[in-house]
Amino acid sequence: MSDIVVTLPDGSELEVESGSSVEDVAYEIGPGLGADTVAGVVDGDLTDKAEPLVEDCELVIVTDQSDEYLRVLRHSAAHVFAQALQRLYPGSKLAIGPPTDEGFYYDVTGVDLSADDFGDLEAEMESIIEADYDIERVERSREAAHDIYDDNEYKREILETEAGGEETVSFYLQDGWQDLCRGPHVDSTGEIGAVKLLNIAAAYWRGDEDNDTLTRVYGTAFESEADLETFLTRREAAKERDHRKLGRELDLFSIPEVTGPGLPLYHPNGKAILRELEAFVDGLNDEQGYEFVETPHLFRTELWKQSGHYDNYVDDMFLLDVNDEEYGLKPMNCPGHATIFNQGNWSYRDLPVRYAENGKVYRKEQRGELSGLSRVWAFTIDDGHLFVKPDSIEREVTTIMEQIDEVLETFDLDHEVALATRPDKSVGSDEIWEAAESQLREVLESSGMDYDVEPGDGAFYGPKIDFAFEDALGRNWDGPTVQLDFNMPERFGLSYTGEDNEEHQPVMIHRALYGSYERFFMVLIEHFDGNFPTWLAPEQVRILPVSDDNIGYAKQLKNRYLSEFRVEIEDRSWTVGKKIQAAHDDRVPYMLVVGDDEVEAGTVSVRDRFEAEAKGVDVETFCAHLQGEVDEKRVEPDFVGE
Amino acid sequence: MSDIVVTLPDGSELEVESGSSVEDVAYEIGPGLGADTVAGVVDGDLTDKAEPLVEDCELVIVTDQSDEYLRVLRHSAAHVFAQALQRLYPGSKLAIGPPTDEGFYYDVTGVDLSADDFGDLEAEMESIIEADYDIERVERSREAAHDIYDDNEYKREILETEAGGEETVSFYLQDGWQDLCRGPHVDSTGEIGAVKLLNIAAAYWRGDEDNDTLTRVYGTAFESEADLETFLTRREAAKERDHRKLGRELDLFSIPEVTGPGLPLYHPNGKAILRELEAFVDGLNDEQGYEFVETPHLFRTELWKQSGHYDNYVDDMFLLDVNDEEYGLKPMNCPGHATIFNQGNWSYRDLPVRYAENGKVYRKEQRGELSGLSRVWAFTIDDGHLFVKPDSIEREVTTIMEQIDEVLETFDLDHEVALATRPDKSVGSDEIWEAAESQLREVLESSGMDYDVEPGDGAFYGPKIDFAFEDALGRNWDGPTVQLDFNMPERFGLSYTGEDNEEHQPVMIHRALYGSYERFFMVLIEHFDGNFPTWLAPEQVRILPVSDDNIGYAKQLKNRYLSEFRVEIEDRSWTVGKKIQAAHDDRVPYMLVVGDDEVEAGTVSVRDRFEAEAKGVDVETFCAHLQGEVDEKRVEPDFVGE
Repeated sequence: MSDIVVTLPDGSELEVESGSSVEDVAYEIGPGLGADTVAGVVDGDLTDKAEPLVEDCELVIVTDQSDEYLRVLRHSAAHVFAQALQRLYPGSKLAIGPPTDEGFYYDVTGVDLSADDFGDLEAEMESIIEADYDIERVERSREAAHDIYDDNEYKREILETEAGGEETVSFYLQDGWQDLCRGPHVDSTGEIGAVKLLNIAAAYWRGDEDNDTLTRVYGTAFESEADLETFLTRREAAKERDHRKLGRELDLFSIPEVTGPGLPLYHPNGKAILRELEAFVDGLNDEQGYEFVETPHLFRTELWKQSGHYDNYVDDMFLLDVNDEEYGLKPMNCPGHATIFNQGNWSYRDLPVRYAENGKVYRKEQRGELSGLSRVWAFTIDDGHLFVKPDSIEREVTTIMEQIDEVLETFDLDHEVALATRPDKSVGSDEIWEAAESQLREVLESSGMDYDVEPGDGAFYGPKIDFAFEDALGRNWDGPTVQLDFNMPERFGLSYTGEDNEEHQPVMIHRALYGSYERFFMVLIEHFDGNFPTWLAPEQVRILPVSDDNIGYAKQLKNRYLSEFRVEIEDRSWTVGKKIQAAHDDRVPYMLVVGDDEVEAGTVSVRDRFEAEAKGVDVETFCAHLQGEVDEKRVEPDFVGE
Repeated sequence: MSDIVVTLPDGSELEVESGSSVEDVAYEIGPGLGADTVAGVVDGDLTDKAEPLVEDCELVIVTDQSDEYLRVLRHSAAHVFAQALQRLYPGSKLAIGPPTDEGFYYDVTGVDLSADDFGDLEAEMESIIEADYDIERVERSREAAHDIYDDNEYKREILETEAGGEETVSFYLQDGWQDLCRGPHVDSTGEIGAVKLLNIAAAYWRGDEDNDTLTRVYGTAFESEADLETFLTRREAAKERDHRKLGRELDLFSIPEVTGPGLPLYHPNGKAILRELEAFVDGLNDEQGYEFVETPHLFRTELWKQSGHYDNYVDDMFLLDVNDEEYGLKPMNCPGHATIFNQGNWSYRDLPVRYAENGKVYRKEQRGELSGLSRVWAFTIDDGHLFVKPDSIEREVTTIMEQIDEVLETFDLDHEVALATRPDKSVGSDEIWEAAESQLREVLESSGMDYDVEPGDGAFYGPKIDFAFEDALGRNWDGPTVQLDFNMPERFGLSYTGEDNEEHQPVMIHRALYGSYERFFMVLIEHFDGNFPTWLAPEQVRILPVSDDNIGYAKQLKNRYLSEFRVEIEDRSWTVGKKIQAAHDDRVPYMLVVGDDEVEAGTVSVRDRFEAEAKGVDVETFCAHLQGEVDEKRVEPDFVGE
C-alpha cells in the first residue's frame, strides 16, 4: 500500500501507510498517546479511532484531555440512555441520538414517557455505567443491518441516506445492546462520570413538520459529579434569568400567536434598550468614517442569483410571487450594499468605502427551532461592509477589532478570538489569500491577544476572524465577526481605478460588532439578569414621594433637573416600602426617595438597586454623577459609596 | 311627489320637490346662481346639473367660480381631444378619459400615435373649441348604447360595470360626436380657454397587467392661455428639479432593475438626509412623551382579519405562504401597535399612551403606477398611535397640530387644514362622534387658522383633520394626518380602568407628521431643488485648498474645528474655479477656500451656494454660526452678509 501524508496540529507531517487507523498514527507518535487515544478529528470531522486513513489529511488526536472528549462521552451517554430505555420499555423504538453543545438527546417513539419516568431511567443508566461494559465497534453488512431494523423505519431511512453508499455500516455494542452509529465513543460505559436527564419535548422526524412526531429526551453527561453539579447550578440560574421570562416581567418584547412566530414585537422598554444599543454602534461607526445606507427588505431573487446566494439560501428564504416574478425577503444585507457600491465610479483615493446599516434579515427556521429572541425568523444585524484595497486590509481590520473590543468591554464580556484560514475549496488567487491571511495574523499578533488558528475553517470566499464571548453564566456566544470576501467583488464585477490607472478589484470585508441585535439583546438580558447598566435601563431613575404631598417636588425634580434622563414618578398611594419593592422588581438602577425633609432641604435620598442609600444628597451632584455614569456607559450604578 | 331636504354648504336647509335637478335648486336659491350653474356636488360626488335629486342630501352648487369648475372643464377637454382624435383617425377606439389633478387623459387604441402628432391634434382641438359647439346630455336605453358600441369592447364593459344596473345611461354630445359619460361638463366647447397635449404613454386597460395595452394621451386645459402658460412654466421648472434626476445627480438613491421596482436603495447621501429627518421627528416625539416601539414587517394575516383590514387591503398586500399559513407584509402599523397596547393593564392614570415607530409599510401598486420615490411598494411612515380617554382628545390633537406646524414651518411649507366629519356609514355612538367632532372644532378654532369643513369626508371609523401643504412650485401635497378611530379599539377589545373602576374603551388617534418619508423626501428634493438646508445637506461644508500645499491646513480645520459636521476636502489637483463649480453642482451649502493667505492668518474664506463670499473669517466665528444654523434648522446658508 502507498503512503499518505498526515498533517498534525503543530504543522508537522507524518508519512504513514494508507489504511492506518487514527489510533495507529497515535501509537506511531508515541505509545502513551496511542494508549490515551479516544478518537480523532480528521479534516475537521470527529471520527472513530479505528477509522482507516486512506488519503492525505489533517489529523487531531482526541484524548480525555481534549475539548472534543466531552462530546464523545456525551454521545456514549446517549447510547446508555437508549439501552436503559429499551431495557425498561422493550417496545420503544430509537430514531437518532446525537451529542449537543450542552449534552445529548435521543428521539424515540413507541413509548409514552414523561419527566416522571426520569428517576427510573436514570437509575437504570447508573447501573449500566457501574457495570462498565466495553463499548465495541462492529462493521456489519447492509443486509444484516436491514434485518436488525426490520421494524424500525427511521434506522432504515438512515441506512439509505446518511449511511447510504457504504458497503458495510458500523454498529456500537455494549453488553449485547447495539445501535447503528458512526461513533466515536469512549471505551467503556464506566468512563461516564455523571448523567442527568433534563427535559422532554415533542420533535418532528428530521425536523420536518410533515413527518412523524417523536419524543425527544434531553440529557447531559460529564466526567465527574462535580462538573455536573456546576452545570446544573448554572442552568438553574439561567432559567431564573431566561430572557423570555424577564422579557415578560420587564415588558421588553412579545411574540404573540396572532402576529406570528419568530417575529418579535418590541414594547417601549425593549425598544428603549435597542435604541441605545443602536446609537452606541452608530456612534462608533460614525467615528470610523462609515456611511449609512438603507436597502429594502424585499428583493427580486434575481439579485440573489447574481450574488450566488440563491443556490445555498433558497430553502431558508421567505419567497413570494409578484406579477409572476419571484421575490424574497433578504437573508443578508451584503448584495444590497454591493449594488450601491457598484453604481459609483471609484478611484483608489476614495477607498476604503465603508457602508453601515442596521439591516433586518430573514431566515425561515423550522417553527420548532424558534425560541424567544435567540432563534427568530427576522433579526437585525449591525451590518457593515467595507470595500478596500488589498493592501489596507490590516489597517481596517485593526480598527474593526478595536471597535469589537470596545463593544464587548462596555458590557463586561470577556472574549476569545480565532483565525480561520483557507479551506480546500476556495475562490481567489494564492497571492491574495496569502497576503490577506498574513495581514490578519499581523493584526492578531500586534493586538497582543492570545488567539487560536482554525486551519481550513475559513469561508470559501475568504479567511475570517471568529469571536466567542462569555457571559456572566460562563456560556459562550458568537456574534461579532470579521470576514474577508474575494468572491462577491468578482460576482458583482466591482472595481476601482488604481494609481496605475488600471481597473482593480477591491476586497470586501463583512463585519458586525454585535452580530444580531436580537441575539445580543437576549444575551444581555440574561447576562445582566435584567439589571441593565444605567445607560441602557429603560427607566433610569424612579422618584418615590413619601406621601402624596411630595408629588409636586417630585415633578419639579423630574422636569427641572432630570429631563434628559428616563425618569418616572411613582404616584400610587403606597407605602414607601412597597414603592421600593416595586422599583426593585422593575430593576430600576436608582430610586430617589423624597419626603418632607428632602423637600425642605431641597435634597434627595438616593437608593440604588443594591439597596445602598445616601441621604441628604444635593440634586445637582446626583445629576452630574448620573450624566457621567451614562456617558461612560458604566456597568453598575455607583453613586452611593462612591 | 314628496319633498326632500337639501342641505347647503352654509348649513341652511331647503325643502324641494323630489326629482328636482341641481339646476332647479340653484334657480330656487336665485336666478343668477341658476344661470351660472355648471354642475353640482351631491353628497361629495361631482354630478351633472341635470341630475334629479331624489333623497335628502348635501349639495354644493358648482359655478365657474368654484374649485371644481376646472375639473369639469378638463373633463370636457378630454371629450374635445377624443372628438379631434376620431376626426383625424376614424378607426381609433376610445376606452376611458377622466379628468385628473393636473389635466386629463384618454386611453385609446386602434391608432398609432406619437408626440409628433400632438400638433395636428391640438389644431383640431382648437377648431372644435372655436366652433363653440353646445355640449348636450342625452339619456339612451342600454340597448341603444350597446348598439353604438358594437365594436368597442371597453365601452361595453363599462356598460356592464360602472354603468351597470341603470335603466338608461347618459351620453354627452357635441356636434354629433358622442361619448358614454356620467358628466358633468361645461355648456359648450368654447368655454375651454386653452388646451395642451403633454405626454403619451402605454397603459393597461383597468391598470391590470393581464389586460390589453392601450395608448394613454395626457393633456391639460385651463380657462385662459395665461393660466396654461403659468402651468407650463412651473411644469418645466418641476422637470428640472425632478427628484429622479436630482436623485441620480446628487447620488441620493437608486431603484435598480435587479433589486426590483418600487423598492428604493438609499445611498449614503440620501440616507444622511433621512437620518436627519428621522432624528428631527423622533426628537419632537420624545419631547411629547411618545414611547418608541418596533413591530415586524411580516405578519400572519390573522392579525389583519382581526383588525378588519384584510377585506379591504388584501388585493394590495404582498402575501406569502409559510408552512401552509398565510403571511403578509404589513400594509399599516396600527394593528401591531394595538397588539402591544393590548398586552398591558391600563388605568386612566396611565393614559394617554403614545407609541411611535418609523414603520415601513407595503402596498402592491401596479408596476406602471410606480414612480421614483413618489409611488413605491414600500414606504416608511413616521407613525404614531395614541390611546386616549375620550375627554383628552382636544389636548392631544392640539399638541399634534403644533408638531405638524413646527415640521412644515421648518421646511418653509405653507399649509391648509380641513375638518372631515361623520360620513353616512360609520361606527361609534352619536355621543362619541359629537364629542370628538366638537373637540376637533375647538382645536381648529383656538389655533386661529382658517379651515374648511368637509362634511361626510371622515373615515367610517372616526373624524379627521386633513392637511395639504404647498411646495415652492405651488403644488399641493398631503402627508401629515390626524385621524380619530373608534373602530380599532372595539375590534381589538382595548380597554382601561376608569376612575369609576369600570372598564372603558380608549379612543385611538392615528397621526403622522411627515406621512411617508419617501414622499416627503421626494417633495423636499423638488421643493429645495436639491439645495437642502445646511442641517439636512449630506455634505455641509467643502474645504477647497487653493493648492496641494494647503491640504494640510484643510485637514487641520476639518479635524480640529469641524469634526461635528459633514465635511469633505476637495483634494483633486484642480483649479479653484473648477473646485468651486463642482461644489456648486453638488449643492454644498458652504465652501471654505484656503490658500497661503488663509494659512498664514489662520482664517478661511467662506463662500456660500449663492456665490456670496467673506474673506479673512475667523474659524471659530464661522463654526459657531454653522452650529447655530444647524441647531435652528435655518433654511438657507446665511453666514455671508449676516
